[in-house]
Amino acid sequence: MANIHFDYLTRLREVMKEKGIDCVIISGTDPHQSELPPAHWRGREWITGFESGNGTNGTAVVLADEAYCWTDSRYFIQAEDQLQGSGFKMMKEDGPDAVDLIDWVTEKMNAGQVVAIDGMTFSVSYAQRLQQELNDNNIKFVDDFALFDHIWPERPERPKNKLFIHDEKIVGETVDEKVADVLKELKGELANAIMLSALDDIAWITNLRAANDIAFSPIFVAYLYLDENGRRVLFIDKEKITEEVAAHLEKYKFEVEPYDSVLDFAAALPKETRLLLDPMKTSRTLYDHVGCTPVFGGDGVAKLKSIKNQTMLANLETAMEKDGVALTKFFMMVEKEYPSGKLTEVELGKRLRALRLADPSCVDESFAPILGWNAHGAIVHYEATEQTDVAIVGDGLLLVDSGGQYTFGTTDITRTIALGTPTDEQRHDFTLVMKGHINLANAVFPAGTRGDQLDSLARIFLWKEGKAYYHGTGHGVGFFINCHEGPQNIRLNHNPTPLQPGMITSNEPGLYLEGRYGIRCENLIVTVPAMQTEFGQFYKFEEMTLFPFDLTLFEPAIMTDAEIDWLNTYHKKVYDRLSPLLNDEEKAWLQKKTQPLSK
Amino acid sequence: MANIHFDYLTRLREVMKEKGIDCVIISGTDPHQSELPPAHWRGREWITGFESGNGTNGTAVVLADEAYCWTDSRYFIQAEDQLQGSGFKMMKEDGPDAVDLIDWVTEKMNAGQVVAIDGMTFSVSYAQRLQQELNDNNIKFVDDFALFDHIWPERPERPKNKLFIHDEKIVGETVDEKVADVLKELKGELANAIMLSALDDIAWITNLRAANDIAFSPIFVAYLYLDENGRRVLFIDKEKITEEVAAHLEKYKFEVEPYDSVLDFAAALPKETRLLLDPMKTSRTLYDHVGCTPVFGGDGVAKLKSIKNQTMLANLETAMEKDGVALTKFFMMVEKEYPSGKLTEVELGKRLRALRLADPSCVDESFAPILGWNAHGAIVHYEATEQTDVAIVGDGLLLVDSGGQYTFGTTDITRTIALGTPTDEQRHDFTLVMKGHINLANAVFPAGTRGDQLDSLARIFLWKEGKAYYHGTGHGVGFFINCHEGPQNIRLNHNPTPLQPGMITSNEPGLYLEGRYGIRCENLIVTVPAMQTEFGQFYKFEEMTLFPFDLTLFEPAIMTDAEIDWLNTYHKKVYDRLSPLLNDEEKAWLQKKTQPLSK
Repeated sequence: MANIHFDYLTRLREVMKEKGIDCVIISGTDPHQSELPPAHWRGREWITGFESGNGTNGTAVVLADEAYCWTDSRYFIQAEDQLQGSGFKMMKEDGPDAVDLIDWVTEKMNAGQVVAIDGMTFSVSYAQRLQQELNDNNIKFVDDFALFDHIWPERPERPKNKLFIHDEKIVGETVDEKVADVLKELKGELANAIMLSALDDIAWITNLRAANDIAFSPIFVAYLYLDENGRRVLFIDKEKITEEVAAHLEKYKFEVEPYDSVLDFAAALPKETRLLLDPMKTSRTLYDHVGCTPVFGGDGVAKLKSIKNQTMLANLETAMEKDGVALTKFFMMVEKEYPSGKLTEVELGKRLRALRLADPSCVDESFAPILGWNAHGAIVHYEATEQTDVAIVGDGLLLVDSGGQYTFGTTDITRTIALGTPTDEQRHDFTLVMKGHINLANAVFPAGTRGDQLDSLARIFLWKEGKAYYHGTGHGVGFFINCHEGPQNIRLNHNPTPLQPGMITSNEPGLYLEGRYGIRCENLIVTVPAMQTEFGQFYKFEEMTLFPFDLTLFEPAIMTDAEIDWLNTYHKKVYDRLSPLLNDEEKAWLQKKTQPLSK
Repeated sequence: MANIHFDYLTRLREVMKEKGIDCVIISGTDPHQSELPPAHWRGREWITGFESGNGTNGTAVVLADEAYCWTDSRYFIQAEDQLQGSGFKMMKEDGPDAVDLIDWVTEKMNAGQVVAIDGMTFSVSYAQRLQQELNDNNIKFVDDFALFDHIWPERPERPKNKLFIHDEKIVGETVDEKVADVLKELKGELANAIMLSALDDIAWITNLRAANDIAFSPIFVAYLYLDENGRRVLFIDKEKITEEVAAHLEKYKFEVEPYDSVLDFAAALPKETRLLLDPMKTSRTLYDHVGCTPVFGGDGVAKLKSIKNQTMLANLETAMEKDGVALTKFFMMVEKEYPSGKLTEVELGKRLRALRLADPSCVDESFAPILGWNAHGAIVHYEATEQTDVAIVGDGLLLVDSGGQYTFGTTDITRTIALGTPTDEQRHDFTLVMKGHINLANAVFPAGTRGDQLDSLARIFLWKEGKAYYHGTGHGVGFFINCHEGPQNIRLNHNPTPLQPGMITSNEPGLYLEGRYGIRCENLIVTVPAMQTEFGQFYKFEEMTLFPFDLTLFEPAIMTDAEIDWLNTYHKKVYDRLSPLLNDEEKAWLQKKTQPLSK
């Protein structure tokens, strides 16, 4: 039963014994709280064997004779499988059998025992709660146990990919303008300096990017310090700086310091500095080092970053056209080759990636594509691997959720298509999902409205038939940065952030019938002003994504005229925008796919 | 300019000077944080002259040479008017020109000055925030200045109305069952005793009521203590206890203690008592007296009270029938007498009250009726008085929001009817409001759904045309208790409480065109199970209110078949349920009012 991971665990236990540590909690992320940490910080994956291309949410706990790995419901099946023989048992972070990790550890330990973490990879907030609960129970807390230094000789080094400049002409805003906006936010928080850890915030402010530091997002590993006196300090591995980037940094008056020097820098800040830190994004260790007054602030930079200017929106339209062309070629190919019976999920993934990357402005996919045939489509975060791969044969539904990182913007689209003959039930369910999609797309709402207030518009038609999906309806989307970004979203859970003009959000209701099929229909939408009346300012959404929904999956009898109008208008726009970029065969195919639907 | 209130203010300032107090904050409520305090505690009304039948939200601040009265947007026009010459200036509690009272006082006072309150009439939460801010600025805080003892010789005494028993057969639950449920809640909060101040909670647990202690709600002035050892102590003025009530209290093992003794009782509680207190409902003074460990708890009792059992729901159906009959007689009369030109808003209010109270089970109205003709209908909390009264003449819309306190349950209904010929614009607006009303009424939603998630369903049709109302769509409704109760509601603002089976909530979207007309359409709805599927448990709403919506105000062209079906099905139910209780003329009238609508 024992596998390689079991050996790693043995190594760790020897070090724990030596150091008098009874319990180690191992983070699944990095000093920047990244959703997809670089390999250097994938120690939790290394020791447990539980990993995934789209990043795995998971935190491990190691005791002298037990070990556990917590993860969320998206990964229960996969984690259970990958943890076999590793010495780790799976624990559930959410759902009906959820166990709170901190409560569990606190209960498990006796007074006087020692719990350790590597404070570099835990946020201030998390570590604070942990410490509080341990203290309340007289359990000792060590927050500087750099476990992987002791046990992981094969550890990959930090990514050293070269930075490149994200053209100001594409971005529509200079670094100086962004820094000025951030400094304005500081005033609101009564701070006079800020230390940024979140990598997408740093990439956004500096107009810099790098390929491959982080999977599927062109951000790079660094810290950034800004203050009211005009200091701008980028902490980064020097190998990453090209001549061109050095000139850019000089132009914008950045000092460049070694990545590792950030701790000493924070320690040496003058006493009068009131340093804004996001407790959800800043590491415990960095916070421990701060020598001045820390001010805990919210998501001010994320809010600035979430609002896209007109230049960005215009460029995103270009990215959407490029994406629509790639998808046209892809789905044409699927239809053509499907009868051969030789297509598989993995093969389709490769083809789709190649079609997107054929465009020179596409740097990467924006996440590992979710390509699920029938029952696999019902696994919300399915990722086809050699082990799970199936051939696309027989009748059924193919769910394709994918996106690209274009220098002109980030795309994220889901289409569900029928291959062979769809059943009436599939058409009915698909139409319910689309009625919700259209209802949200058509919403008009007063300034100040939150996403959680609009969420039910996308769900109500499913609910009326006792059907439901439990993931969010929409997430914020970055601009040639992370495909998932805050602070806004459209979800069941409360989120106080209102939807504001310039925010890009996904609209992706779905339905998942376990073991049978999955449906998800996703466009990206941008919030724009709708009208100003005696009742105030109203906003609405505009569609950014350009690709048709499968006409063979609609049940027009349960659609209103307004819903059919929305679909036909959208499809006309898709054809008008994409057809000039297509060859004759593709154009003819797209015309068929966008012909008007009628009752 | 000076009026009688100015003299009162002079008296107060003399006492302040004598006691070295620089600023007094005067509460608008009582030791139970009642929405409508008894006259004994209407000191803020007495000194400022700002008052209203439906209770006035307002807090006054008196300084040596200035005085202010804060209130919310429902009352801006009325307060401005009533405060004329009183020496008090109005301040806004909400809206764009809102001023935070505590911030204002803190800024106004200098270090060393003294701010005083009567701690009996301020909640623990409010007083705590006030004290904190004053402390931070070295301003002194006195929390036991019983100002009205000094300056209000004419002060009405505490209400001494007799209690009566709310029949267990109507309520469907014994006192023992309710006490057991409350004690279960205590365990969840790690408390072993509870002191209740909220009068509706006390009336609910004891199955006791009184007429006229509080306007429009049959609750009574008391405190209630319960603990795990079986102690049940009611603090109440003895004059209120009849022999029958004394027997009821004895049967359920209540000790009865004088109302005023609650403070000494709280002070003498044994140290090991962990006393649950709701910091929003408990007075600062009571809290100050507590001699044991206080535990601040939420709205556990309010949650229990909000869920109505099957017996209550069956009885509420009876109350709704009685209310429907009264409204049939009322609106028939309005139609008949309207051509005379002699009807006025005040006259209609009297007639409506008489029709409701003609039923022996109707103890009172459930609030001061809002009867607004045309422009008056656009004032959300309009209350017709001799000064504002207008005759119902010409063409227009009449908005009638009213309800009754029946022993069988509390009603609350709004209808907007056309008199003369409505305009196309009025019909269009009315239909938009009704489309929202129906959309919410027809909702189905998974267990766990909050009201704020469904709120947009009622607003979306207005929003699409740049129209909006800013009050809540729905409030919880008590059972022969307060017409407004928590914890659930259906609003723009976030409220974490999910809608649960047995909760009664209003569904009352509206639209208000200042100076022109107002529209509101309100039914009470109960949450009930809809279905259980592989996706979980789903709930829906059932209509409780029984009275037709004005058919002449619909614009069928903008309605869907499903909306028209809902209306016709609802109207058929109204006719079927009410007609057996009507005479032939009334029956014929109702039949006309409930005939099917078609496109």
